[in-house]
Amino acid sequence: MLRLPALLLLLSPGSVCCPPGVLSGLPLGSRRGPPGRAQPPRAALYQTRYLPQKIDHFGFDQDLTFQQRYLVADQHWRKDNGSILFYTGNEGDITWFCNNTGFMWDVAEELNAMLIFAEHRYYGESLPFGNKSYSDSKHLNYLTSEQALADFAILIQHLKETIPGALNAPVIAIGGSYGGMLAAWFRMKYPHVVVGALAASAPIWQFEDLVPCGTFYTIVTNDFKKSGQCCSESILNSWGAINRVSSTDEGLKWLSSAFHLCSPLKSKQDVAVLKAWLSETWVNLAMVNYPYKADFLQPLPAWPIQVVCKFLKNPKLPDKLLLQNVFQAANVYNNYSGAASCLNTSQSATRNLGLMGWYYQACTEMVMPMCTDGVNDMFEPRKWNFHVFSEECFKLWKVKPRPSWIPSVYGGKNISSHSNIIFSNGGLDPWSGGGVTRNITDSLTAIVIPEGAHHLDLRASNPSDPKSVLQARALEVQYMKQWIEKYRHKH
Amino acid sequence: MLRLPALLLLLSPGSVCCPPGVLSGLPLGSRRGPPGRAQPPRAALYQTRYLPQKIDHFGFDQDLTFQQRYLVADQHWRKDNGSILFYTGNEGDITWFCNNTGFMWDVAEELNAMLIFAEHRYYGESLPFGNKSYSDSKHLNYLTSEQALADFAILIQHLKETIPGALNAPVIAIGGSYGGMLAAWFRMKYPHVVVGALAASAPIWQFEDLVPCGTFYTIVTNDFKKSGQCCSESILNSWGAINRVSSTDEGLKWLSSAFHLCSPLKSKQDVAVLKAWLSETWVNLAMVNYPYKADFLQPLPAWPIQVVCKFLKNPKLPDKLLLQNVFQAANVYNNYSGAASCLNTSQSATRNLGLMGWYYQACTEMVMPMCTDGVNDMFEPRKWNFHVFSEECFKLWKVKPRPSWIPSVYGGKNISSHSNIIFSNGGLDPWSGGGVTRNITDSLTAIVIPEGAHHLDLRASNPSDPKSVLQARALEVQYMKQWIEKYRHKH
Repeated sequence: MLRLPALLLLLSPGSVCCPPGVLSGLPLGSRRGPPGRAQPPRAALYQTRYLPQKIDHFGFDQDLTFQQRYLVADQHWRKDNGSILFYTGNEGDITWFCNNTGFMWDVAEELNAMLIFAEHRYYGESLPFGNKSYSDSKHLNYLTSEQALADFAILIQHLKETIPGALNAPVIAIGGSYGGMLAAWFRMKYPHVVVGALAASAPIWQFEDLVPCGTFYTIVTNDFKKSGQCCSESILNSWGAINRVSSTDEGLKWLSSAFHLCSPLKSKQDVAVLKAWLSETWVNLAMVNYPYKADFLQPLPAWPIQVVCKFLKNPKLPDKLLLQNVFQAANVYNNYSGAASCLNTSQSATRNLGLMGWYYQACTEMVMPMCTDGVNDMFEPRKWNFHVFSEECFKLWKVKPRPSWIPSVYGGKNISSHSNIIFSNGGLDPWSGGGVTRNITDSLTAIVIPEGAHHLDLRASNPSDPKSVLQARALEVQYMKQWIEKYRHKH
Repeated sequence: MLRLPALLLLLSPGSVCCPPGVLSGLPLGSRRGPPGRAQPPRAALYQTRYLPQKIDHFGFDQDLTFQQRYLVADQHWRKDNGSILFYTGNEGDITWFCNNTGFMWDVAEELNAMLIFAEHRYYGESLPFGNKSYSDSKHLNYLTSEQALADFAILIQHLKETIPGALNAPVIAIGGSYGGMLAAWFRMKYPHVVVGALAASAPIWQFEDLVPCGTFYTIVTNDFKKSGQCCSESILNSWGAINRVSSTDEGLKWLSSAFHLCSPLKSKQDVAVLKAWLSETWVNLAMVNYPYKADFLQPLPAWPIQVVCKFLKNPKLPDKLLLQNVFQAANVYNNYSGAASCLNTSQSATRNLGLMGWYYQACTEMVMPMCTDGVNDMFEPRKWNFHVFSEECFKLWKVKPRPSWIPSVYGGKNISSHSNIIFSNGGLDPWSGGGVTRNITDSLTAIVIPEGAHHLDLRASNPSDPKSVLQARALEVQYMKQWIEKYRHKH
């Protein structure tokens, strides 16, 4: 099993977003929950539509098409004076993003906006080759960000040509996480199509050596440090405890039982999987450390890391006692409902179609170096090893990653000639380490939400929202209105 | 034979630019001459290098590479304070563009510039699949402008990483004709790679309905109107004369003899080819109507249309007399040296590798609608018929053209958010009809050279240059210096 060191696929909203049925094969206790329902389902409020798209926008040998799904909500659309908010769908089922991007619904009326949620090719129902889409590298060949952006451009052109009043309506791209990267890149590459972009929690610099590879895990660690005394030390110490306990057969048995594992640990490899599963738990908690009860990756209490840290106050306990506490802490994330009778740590992520797609993307374009050192972070030291990574990718997909392509094509840190992009980042979000957190120019602006986790600003308004996210959203709307006004002035 | 209505392939510098040997199969009297030698060959002044490039930048299934050729001239390069002028190679052998873009050589010293001439994939020596590159639509699949731009970006990155002093040197893209389109698009899509672009005679709007399809031939006609009394009327009347004379067997014989054709005319189809050949002659003359003796498409006198028009003063002559004059006039272009013993009008253009490539590009991305009406122009009326065009493309290449793709991907007329592009156009150049001839913003500026034909400004300085081209070049250098200065200010 390919274990990528903390890639978006393990962490982002998209990674749990999958078509109905796909998840049904997963046992209880899998860390993949059902699609989030933090906000009421909006299925009744949007229409589902499909547009034929070229499978290959950049080649003419095969002239095949597939049906791209998109959702339209036009309750607040005004054809005489309206705008279009266009969600640049990322690695998952678009209905899930639609239901979890309450911000767009909240501001639609104020902006007279039609909402469009465009599904990313190879996810949800937008499968270029149906159930053969993931069969081999040949069929996966058209799963790239460039093709996805071209889909978006063609879709917007189609909407403008077919919806009365849309032709001269300003379009704004909005996205979170990988979708935020796409929103930013879309404005960079297709500024004639969108007047601006809101790129929420978009780690566009988490590539090559644009940021230190350790930043991500350092931020995760800081979240735990802030949430409870000795909390990060407890986790730091837990790895040694696991290593010591698991060094005997009796210890393996004990660990399997203490962690309520569905499959008992039998080898060092199994222990490595357990540790990766724990790392992932802490990372995911950092991403969804929201100020209110929510169900994004998993059903969780408000400020879940604080709840977790209540179990992790004493890092100096004997190994087994420490690990019992770690189990309780991890259970906050993995079995908050208490419904799971055992935990499955070795569940292959690739059973989930959305995850498969992101795995492939991580193994081709989206190469995000990550590392830990156990000093600046609470994880076991692990260097970034591109060579090993590349070999695993080749084994799995028969493709070779191109780590410098994304900076080459989207500009890396040299993006100052672009305009009208808001980069918003949560101070608690580990992905903010690869994000743009300082203004680049007057019209490439950064908004930091100190109390925010992963794209909190895109979520629906909530009574427990910290002031910083309210301010961020207000500023975002202000920028969007400026873009719209400037556009109208010219048209 | 596919006869595209006046596409760049029939007209642009690239169309006569082909590797040594490829042309050798053509009989004397073919309208394709040897590579132009208007300026002394510069082979001794540049080095030839090669860079492995991904054949497919946008897909990962096949990880193959090919050798892209590029030329480097660094006589005036200053590594402490230099700039890089980068020719974005178009549809032909790069050595030919290198030898025919004297402007870059002329300004190198003033800008402390290294000159780079990058060959466009599928032309010259840069063949992705060697001699199989043109074998079928599968091998041709990677011949697109997007792939070519990616080659340029990767090449510049390589130069910056390997040439001492180049890392922080500002790079300016320069190109003419299709190469000018590429220069402009390169700045639009890769503004992090080039600080600006000089797009000479770049018809970026000769797509879809961005400009009227008749503009091109109207400009050709105006060139003839301006160059001699009754000149365009004579040509207008010649089509009817040909039709009447060729309606009998005796007339066909007479025509074949009068035009010194290598193969006698036998059918209506042959007559259509003759007329297309004549149209092409007039169009080519409009493109290379330079103020001095030159050898660009063919060896020609100064102001060649004036010379042609000396034979075309009396449009009301009886058919055969008129046609004898037309032959004399056409001979100025097709046999100025007098060396050809007969003229071959049906020579298939596709024998020329450079032409083959452009034919393919015209049948995929580069769909440029053209039409004539015989009222605003001196040609037989011919509507633009996309359906027929598309069918011919499919017959020839097994591909279907996508006429709206170029505007979709490069923005059509909505390009105002870009910056630092000079669009220069010659008032005599028929391609100026599809070019940008008015300022769009302060930094998307148009320069019109009223007395200029096709990218006259890119040619080497000449004592007979009209004042307008001297002014244009001075302004171009001024803009380039501004870009460089602004860049240095930031780095």
